[in-house]
Parts: sequence; structure tokens; C-alpha cells
Amino acid sequence: MKITLNSPLDMHLHLRDGDMLKLTAPLSADFAGAVIMPNLVPPVTTPTAMQGYAARIASAMDGAAFSSYMTLFFTPMSEKELQAAKETPGFFGFKLYPAGITTNSEGGISDMAQADTTLKLMEEMGIPLLVHGESHGFVMDREQEFLSVYRHLATKYPKLKLSMEHITTAAALRLLDEFPNICATVTLQHLIITLDDVAGGALRPHLFCKPIAKRPEDRDALLQAALNGHPRLMFGSDSAPHPRCKKEACGCAAGVFTAPVALPRLAEIFATNGAADKLQGFVSGNACAWYGLTPVQKTITLQDTPMMVPASYRSYGEQVVPMYAGESIGWSIVR
Amino acid sequence: MKITLNSPLDMHLHLRDGDMLKLTAPLSADFAGAVIMPNLVPPVTTPTAMQGYAARIASAMDGAAFSSYMTLFFTPMSEKELQAAKETPGFFGFKLYPAGITTNSEGGISDMAQADTTLKLMEEMGIPLLVHGESHGFVMDREQEFLSVYRHLATKYPKLKLSMEHITTAAALRLLDEFPNICATVTLQHLIITLDDVAGGALRPHLFCKPIAKRPEDRDALLQAALNGHPRLMFGSDSAPHPRCKKEACGCAAGVFTAPVALPRLAEIFATNGAADKLQGFVSGNACAWYGLTPVQKTITLQDTPMMVPASYRSYGEQVVPMYAGESIGWSIVR
Repeated sequence: MKITLNSPLDMHLHLRDGDMLKLTAPLSADFAGAVIMPNLVPPVTTPTAMQGYAARIASAMDGAAFSSYMTLFFTPMSEKELQAAKETPGFFGFKLYPAGITTNSEGGISDMAQADTTLKLMEEMGIPLLVHGESHGFVMDREQEFLSVYRHLATKYPKLKLSMEHITTAAALRLLDEFPNICATVTLQHLIITLDDVAGGALRPHLFCKPIAKRPEDRDALLQAALNGHPRLMFGSDSAPHPRCKKEACGCAAGVFTAPVALPRLAEIFATNGAADKLQGFVSGNACAWYGLTPVQKTITLQDTPMMVPASYRSYGEQVVPMYAGESIGWSIVR
Repeated sequence: MKITLNSPLDMHLHLRDGDMLKLTAPLSADFAGAVIMPNLVPPVTTPTAMQGYAARIASAMDGAAFSSYMTLFFTPMSEKELQAAKETPGFFGFKLYPAGITTNSEGGISDMAQADTTLKLMEEMGIPLLVHGESHGFVMDREQEFLSVYRHLATKYPKLKLSMEHITTAAALRLLDEFPNICATVTLQHLIITLDDVAGGALRPHLFCKPIAKRPEDRDALLQAALNGHPRLMFGSDSAPHPRCKKEACGCAAGVFTAPVALPRLAEIFATNGAADKLQGFVSGNACAWYGLTPVQKTITLQDTPMMVPASYRSYGEQVVPMYAGESIGWSIVR
């Protein structure tokens, strides 16, 4: 069996910088494009920094046709600053982090009222807002506790293009149905794993991410919504590489590195669940329709021939361990 | 401030064997005694193996006065076998593990009906049953799902001395109140931490144990029950040493090593919560009353002078990392 995808998009991707960027960028090159997260050290907060980062990504892509949809780390901005951002080539939108909620997010927003003027302007100017939606509460409740903020934003700024990033709960899906002016991304791992996979047997640091994987009923609801072709649910891998030494140590950093396995594994999941026809929308069409995107043209064919996933990817002195490291998955990309 | 304890007991302790036993046994020697868990490889299932293990523990204690309350790994037994166990010096009771539920428990019980005849005999013979009460369900639900088994056992064998080991939930506490013929142990860490401490920030393998730490309201309920002097709630550290290399690797083994910090930290917790008078019952009196124990006489004095906890304990080629490694805790033992 084969599935052909037109211009698949990863609507939430961490490529890092420096040697790690050089290692990871080519591993996302089967996608036609991706929304690039700005949480570098320091975060990408200015159009100038963003353009520099986009150029480094293009260089690391080594000639691959790839649309980098660049985001800026949300900070309060004037209309003039927003206009300058909007006019910068490659600019896609803002990523808002509650302060300190995940990797390199210390400079995020601690009080949503700080964001009010900027959000009103973004609504008027058609600039998307992508949100890492977690409270600082108990780890299993953080997303659900944040839903009131989404509700507030969706009500107060009805025309704001608002995305709940990497949702992990059935409750977030219900909010998606409640507000037609919200979209959401979901990762590969949150369609597959639960907290059981992270900490139910032995501890598995390579499956530890933020938001943490939740309950079986959450995973099942997310998978069903994806398979049913929910028009505002989009694939965003949140593929988040960390050096192997940081994942396999005390104080393991949060993030699952899925970029190299995402398309084959998604094809396998959709095909084995009889929903192969819904994959194009999930990995491209829904996002193109919602945001009005026209990514570079790229055709990828996937087949039900196994892929042996490397134990790790190494180059430029960096080493990252992917999901399914050393295992075989059922589908692969036709090269 | 000082607190003097008479014959403190650890009602749930893993000492392992071989070099690890030699390292860990002396670190429990401030206790007057402990209930010793039988999940070695292979598990301790016969009186002969148990006597050998007790002798190795006594040797590792290196002259310290210490009552080893030995348990056998529960397997179905005849009346004759039970009688032989009961007559073996040092025998305390049976530890029942659902098959495969935790470290070295592969040979446990997969169907409670297998245990029926043996449990009836144990009830008649006054032999305690200590249970690792977890289902094979979702990691946050496993204890709560197992409560129906406790309810069944407490109802079917009303005179059986039944202990819910290392309880972690408010629901288990409620069951304790529902059935006066059940007692329970609780660890140090489950009075203090939640899943947030294990996986809410970075991943902290040295706080990863089974049952996993639960929600804040569970932790709070357990702490309050201990501070209020619940007469059937007993301290059992479940101190579970693993070699450092097994804790700080992918597939981290479950267990928190608390033996060397348990008494000072408990004193600190009870004193700072105005419940210093309840500590004697929690770490000794409740267990002595419930089981009719007369441990060796030992007096330990604790004081509100800080203890610097070593980054690890090393000897005999083994290395283990305790809870609070490299940190200072507020109380210490007067030497």
C-alpha cells in the first residue's frame, strides 16, 4: 500500500541552532515546510534575529526546498513593531509562552493582561498567535487549567488566529469544538503514548516532553479526532531535539525527537485505522486552509515497507536519539 | 528542639543482597528493626532461603542490634508449609505482589483466586499478608483500581492481618477508615512529593518509584493522616536502593533510597507541623500494637540541627544516591 502526500507541513518544529540545527534541519527535509519555534537562547524576539535564524535554517537545509514559517517569541509590541514583523519575509506569527513553562521560556508572559494591547493589534492585522497552553499547576492538570485562558482569548479577540499548540487532552479538543475561531496542533507522540509509556514501567526519558503525555482517554480522543479529519486539528510534531547526554541524565530535558519518523509513522497509523484519506488534511490541507498557506510544492510517497529507525543520529559533534530508536516501524518513505 | 524515639521501626524495607546489602544494611541501623522485603532474584519463597537471607542481613548489620522481620514472597502454600514458615525464627508474614508489577515481581500472583486456600489458612494461623496493591492499569489509577481487591480480601478474610503497603492515594486512606481490619504503610517520599517532583519540571529519576507519586491532594491527605496519628498508618520507607548507573540511565529502575534520611526528615516534618508527639506512634507504636511486636530496645534522639546528605553512598563497589543527595535537611540524629 502507498500514500502520496502533497507538501506535508510540520506546524510546530524545534530546529535549535548551531551544530544541532545542522544535524536536525535535514531530518525535516521531507516536509515542504514547518512552523519554526523561536525558543533559542536568547529567544528570537526581533525581525532581525528572525531573519538571521531563517538564513541559518536555509543554509542547514542544504538546498532542500523548504518553507520556513518563522515565529517570534511573543513580547508586548507596538503597532509599528508588529507591522515591521509582518513585513519581514518568512514571518508567520508569534509564539506565546507562559514564563518558565518549558525549555528556554524564562522570558515568557507571566500575566496575560500584559499582552492585551498587542493581541488586539494582532487581531486587527491578521497575525496568528500560537500558544503553549499550560498553567503552573499540577503536571497532569496544566493544560486543562489553561483552557480558561484560551476561552478568554477566543472571546475577547474573536478574529485573532489562535492556535492551541501541542494539545494533549480530550478537554482541549472539546474547546476546539466550542470555539470555531481556534485551531490546534497535535504531536505524533500524543496520538500514541500516555504517561504509562513515560513512567508506567521503567522511566523512559526519550518520551518525556512538555506537555507531558496524559491519560489513555486523552490519547484516544486525540487520535480519533485526527483520524476523523477534524478540520482545525493540524499536525505539529513539536519535534524537540536535545543532546543525548541531556536526555539520559538526571534532570532530563523535555522533548521527543520525532522529525525523522513522523511521516512514516503517521502514514502507518492512518492506514491501519482505515483513514489514509484523512492524512493529507492532517499534515497539510487543514493548515493551508486555516492560515492561507502556499508551501513549496513537494510530493512524498509513503509505503507499508518497514523503516529501521537508527539508534541515534550523529553529526557535527551532536547526537540525538529519535522516537523508536533502534526499532522498526511499519511504514517508510519511498526514496 | 529534640525528639527521642524508642525503637523506631521501618515496616517496609528493601536491603537487596550481596554487596548492595553490605552497603545498605548499616544505613538502616538507626532503626530498631524493619520488615524486610523478599523480592530478591530469585525471590525469597522458602523458610530455608529466608533464614539464609536473615543471616546475611545480620552479618551486614555488623553487630548493630536490629530486629529483621522477614517476609516470604507469597506463593500458594499448604498448611504444613505455612506452619513451617511460621515456626521459622524471624518470620513475619507474606508479601504478595501482583505478577510483574514492580522490581523482581515476575513470579507474583496473576489471579487472586489462586491465593484463596492459602489466605484462609493464613487468616486462621494469624500470619500477616502484606500487599503491593496495584492493578496493571494506567499508572495514576493503579492503586485506586486495586482497592476493590483489598475490599474483597478484608471482607472475605475478616481476621486476616492485612496491610496495604506503601499507599499513595487519599482513596486508599478512605479504605483504611472503612475497614478496621486493614492497616497501611506509607513512605517518606509519599508524604512529601507528587508527580510534579518526578516529572513536572525536569525528569528526576531518583524520585521515581512504584507506586508513582500521585496528586497534591493525595500527598496532603497522607501527610495529614500521619500527623493526626492515624493508629493504623505506619511508617514503611520502601527504601529501595538501585545502583546509581541503573537510576541515571534510560529505563531507570523504580525506587527511592531514603533509609539514611528517613528518621531526621520525619522528625523535621512532624516537628514543623506541631505533631512531634505523634511521631513515636507513626514510626513504632502503631506497628507494635497492630502486630504485637517487641523489637530490640533502641533509643534514638533527633535534633533540629541540619544534616548534610551525602551526594551518594559508596562501598563494596556499589554506589547509591539517597533522597536529598547533596542537600541539607533541617534535622539530624544525635550521635
